[in-house]
Amino acid sequence: MPEPMDALGFDDLLQRLAGFTAPGGGVTRFVYDAAWCSAHRWLREEALARGLVATVDAAGNLFFHDASVAPGDLSRPVLLVGSHLDSVRGGGRYDGAYGALAGLALAAEHRGRGGLPVVGFVTGEEEQSRFDSPMMGARTLLGLSRAGELDRVRDGEGVTWRAARDAAERAGCAAPIAPGDAPFRPCFRAAMMLEPHIEQGPVLEAGGLALGIVTHVAGYRRLRYTVTGAPRHAGTTPMDMRRDALAGAAEMVLAAETLALAAGDPARATAGDLRVSPGMTNVSPGGAEIGFEVRHAEPDRLSWLADTLAERCRAIAIRRGLALAIELVTTQPPTSLSERLAALAESLARELGLSARRMVSGAGHDTMEFARAGAESLLIFVPSRGGVSHAADEYTSPEALWAGVRFTSALIERIAPESVR
Amino acid sequence: MPEPMDALGFDDLLQRLAGFTAPGGGVTRFVYDAAWCSAHRWLREEALARGLVATVDAAGNLFFHDASVAPGDLSRPVLLVGSHLDSVRGGGRYDGAYGALAGLALAAEHRGRGGLPVVGFVTGEEEQSRFDSPMMGARTLLGLSRAGELDRVRDGEGVTWRAARDAAERAGCAAPIAPGDAPFRPCFRAAMMLEPHIEQGPVLEAGGLALGIVTHVAGYRRLRYTVTGAPRHAGTTPMDMRRDALAGAAEMVLAAETLALAAGDPARATAGDLRVSPGMTNVSPGGAEIGFEVRHAEPDRLSWLADTLAERCRAIAIRRGLALAIELVTTQPPTSLSERLAALAESLARELGLSARRMVSGAGHDTMEFARAGAESLLIFVPSRGGVSHAADEYTSPEALWAGVRFTSALIERIAPESVR
Repeated sequence: MPEPMDALGFDDLLQRLAGFTAPGGGVTRFVYDAAWCSAHRWLREEALARGLVATVDAAGNLFFHDASVAPGDLSRPVLLVGSHLDSVRGGGRYDGAYGALAGLALAAEHRGRGGLPVVGFVTGEEEQSRFDSPMMGARTLLGLSRAGELDRVRDGEGVTWRAARDAAERAGCAAPIAPGDAPFRPCFRAAMMLEPHIEQGPVLEAGGLALGIVTHVAGYRRLRYTVTGAPRHAGTTPMDMRRDALAGAAEMVLAAETLALAAGDPARATAGDLRVSPGMTNVSPGGAEIGFEVRHAEPDRLSWLADTLAERCRAIAIRRGLALAIELVTTQPPTSLSERLAALAESLARELGLSARRMVSGAGHDTMEFARAGAESLLIFVPSRGGVSHAADEYTSPEALWAGVRFTSALIERIAPESVR
Repeated sequence: MPEPMDALGFDDLLQRLAGFTAPGGGVTRFVYDAAWCSAHRWLREEALARGLVATVDAAGNLFFHDASVAPGDLSRPVLLVGSHLDSVRGGGRYDGAYGALAGLALAAEHRGRGGLPVVGFVTGEEEQSRFDSPMMGARTLLGLSRAGELDRVRDGEGVTWRAARDAAERAGCAAPIAPGDAPFRPCFRAAMMLEPHIEQGPVLEAGGLALGIVTHVAGYRRLRYTVTGAPRHAGTTPMDMRRDALAGAAEMVLAAETLALAAGDPARATAGDLRVSPGMTNVSPGGAEIGFEVRHAEPDRLSWLADTLAERCRAIAIRRGLALAIELVTTQPPTSLSERLAALAESLARELGLSARRMVSGAGHDTMEFARAGAESLLIFVPSRGGVSHAADEYTSPEALWAGVRFTSALIERIAPESVR
């Protein structure tokens, strides 16, 4: 049996988990790949060494729990604590891994106590880095995926979810699927769910804060703006006789920035991509395509952002004699997390003398799937150095990580007894 | 012997010349390719049919002249009239071809008269569409190219100028090169040079004018602006904590437009290309690269435009916490054409009741090489419908084309006697 955990012991686990990666810079661990399967096996061994049972579901999600808690018994609610095992390509050591190992440590720490059983969980796929289907791990865990998806969803090389999962099952990293339209059966009923995670943004560090208590996960709309003018010879066409699509697009990029700045936090409007045609130095561009994303925590404000951006950009296009086509590429609605848990967490942080703030998560997380499915859910942030994430230099100090684990442990103490009445 | 030329007869020649093209939309006729060689042969036949001698030089430039004018006799000055035979990929029917055929027609019309002999000329390569070396035809014609260039200059497929030229010589479309460092010997001494050309811009059409009398060819500087910020998660990073390279680049694009608009015609500042990295919808961009071009007819003003743009963009970068690197990619100095010929042309147009204006050519032309080499040179524009050029829908009416030919003929009458004194 390992020693009781401390900050350095916990950080050591994180650094060992980071060793399970495909070659290249940073951590690359795509669901069902060799590095993922090795990490999966190692996590199960670490759970067993702490007196826990490791249960694997048909999608390769993992659960760490006391032997007295029977998988498949949905009559008994549990408190799930965890995060995801997969990474983006060339990602960091903390994104997902932090919450996954916190779930393992806290399931071990709270094992066998009365009240709501604490079950650590690790989802297999959250990042959409292998399969272009959002929150696949959490959705299977909650029984929301349908059989048809197994053959429809493919990775970048055309491998179906079914084939990749079957291979993981043969490697011992997934249980057999169930027959019929619901191949993924929930193992546990999550009455409550906590996800410790690094912030992946600069807010906590900039404010000198230890904790972020996340009340909402922002929704987004991703939009393609296609601006069409007329390509013109850059030498022979006077400035006032052009219909320059790039100049129009540049105004739109700035309009988005101005809009979100004026709307205030947590509004975001980002032009992440811009492509120009014909893209020759001596031709004023005839076409430009902008990839916009707007985010907000409130559905009404998200709509307002998208509508106002469209309105302002249409005015720019009209003034410049350009055509503008707007296409909605993809959207995700905002999600409210548990206000009850957030209030409890806030007062607990105050009691413990920990600096904390309520905040909105700009990025999506497994938590929102649990919240939408009806579990009382809370996302807990610790600072990210420089706000860097999805990169090899993602970093949070061992002390800051451990403070988040201790806080989550104290929160479990506070909420678990209350919930079993 | 063909009938005396008229507008429809001249346009018919243009349409026949347009038939010599590589497959695909518009006209594609790269120097020394099969279409170019066929067009070259056809032009020689048309010259012979009009009683002219067709002389070919070692670069494949063509001259149409009376038998009494001996190629290689540089003691006797001539008046060259013409333009280029090559085209851009998918170009139009008029760019270059118009002046080439005008030179043929006017050499025939003025053949055997007293005074300065009129020699039609057709350069082989002006567009830089096959070889990345500017004004190759005019430079060889003027004896400015050196032997080393033959092996150094290559086309997009790696074929050297020497190999391509040798093949054209075997096809009868180029004369043998001379030994030594000056393989291209001038055939004629150009005391004066006229180039009729389509405007390739919208100014004459917009003003309802028949003729443009070009006094200057604008110079340009092509610049690469590399803007570096920091890539940030578009959801987790508040708007006021970003260093968004695309937002900065968008301000720079608009700064260029504002600068040239305020400077007034003939100033141009164009962002023709913009590339973003990483170019993902959910990342505020860490990098952007802008391809800028500034043009002006006066060297001082060209420098001022480039310097002021740099100054304004550096201020934008500093305000936004971005790095900015500016690289000069290529430059061409402005060229003054013959003020004496421009004044003569202007008064002639007035006498003839033709609507004309002095103007600057925003695009480069063979004329500027002749002017720099010391020949009295003038570029004469006729309108381009919609300002369109370098495209399949380039168009000028037969009447407008012919008006330019007749004007050039009258100008020859006026200047040729005066110059032989």
